[in-house]
Amino acid sequence: MSKEYTNDLLLDFGPDGNTLIPVVTQDANTKEVLILAFANREAFEETRKSGYATYWSRSRQELWKKGMTSGDMLEINEIRINCEQNSLVYLVTPKGKGACHAKMEDGNPYRTCYYRKIKDDGTLEVII
Amino acid sequence: MSKEYTNDLLLDFGPDGNTLIPVVTQDANTKEVLILAFANREAFEETRKSGYATYWSRSRQELWKKGMTSGDMLEINEIRINCEQNSLVYLVTPKGKGACHAKMEDGNPYRTCYYRKIKDDGTLEVII
Repeated sequence: MSKEYTNDLLLDFGPDGNTLIPVVTQDANTKEVLILAFANREAFEETRKSGYATYWSRSRQELWKKGMTSGDMLEINEIRINCEQNSLVYLVTPKGKGACHAKMEDGNPYRTCYYRKIKDDGTLEVII
Repeated sequence: MSKEYTNDLLLDFGPDGNTLIPVVTQDANTKEVLILAFANREAFEETRKSGYATYWSRSRQELWKKGMTSGDMLEINEIRINCEQNSLVYLVTPKGKGACHAKMEDGNPYRTCYYRKIKDDGTLEVII
């Protein structure tokens, strides 16, 4: 049966478990997209075991339990998977002040990394 | 000024324009995540010019105007960009029956590619 229709989880992290799968993280309540990051097998398994969104940091090349230092953790409500089983959506409840590492003028983090839109003239505008 | 705080669009498609940027496509009305795909410079520019979600198909290695053959096009309401300017969110109005190429039992496409959740026992369950 193809990946689209089987009930078996066939997420492929590659032979070494380090093929990166893109993960869309969405607020379970507001449905706002908060962050897009990546998971290897270890990050995915840690997410399922701990109940908190965990990624693989490409810049630091290490397991990244979101908010572990800042307190801005993302509690998992549900994990969804796409037709081709090559991407994930984490539906989460944010436990801290915001999911983004960028800070607003008041010093608090933006609640989502997507705080700007691209305007028709090609410049950016902060919208939250 | 860093990419997080400038109003300048600094999306980096690489010297040849073919560095792929992940794009989360979200229903502007329901906020449901519909599909995750990728854009190169050409796909991004075509999206902005045409007003319809356009990606770069990694499997077919060609520009992919979503729904061009099926009619399931995704009209752009707004494009958002993340803090680091390395991913996008397309907020869209679906013009067809569904955004996914996988079909439901009635022959219509699923409205989103994320029609299954991962259950605690590690199997998948169709939820829409």
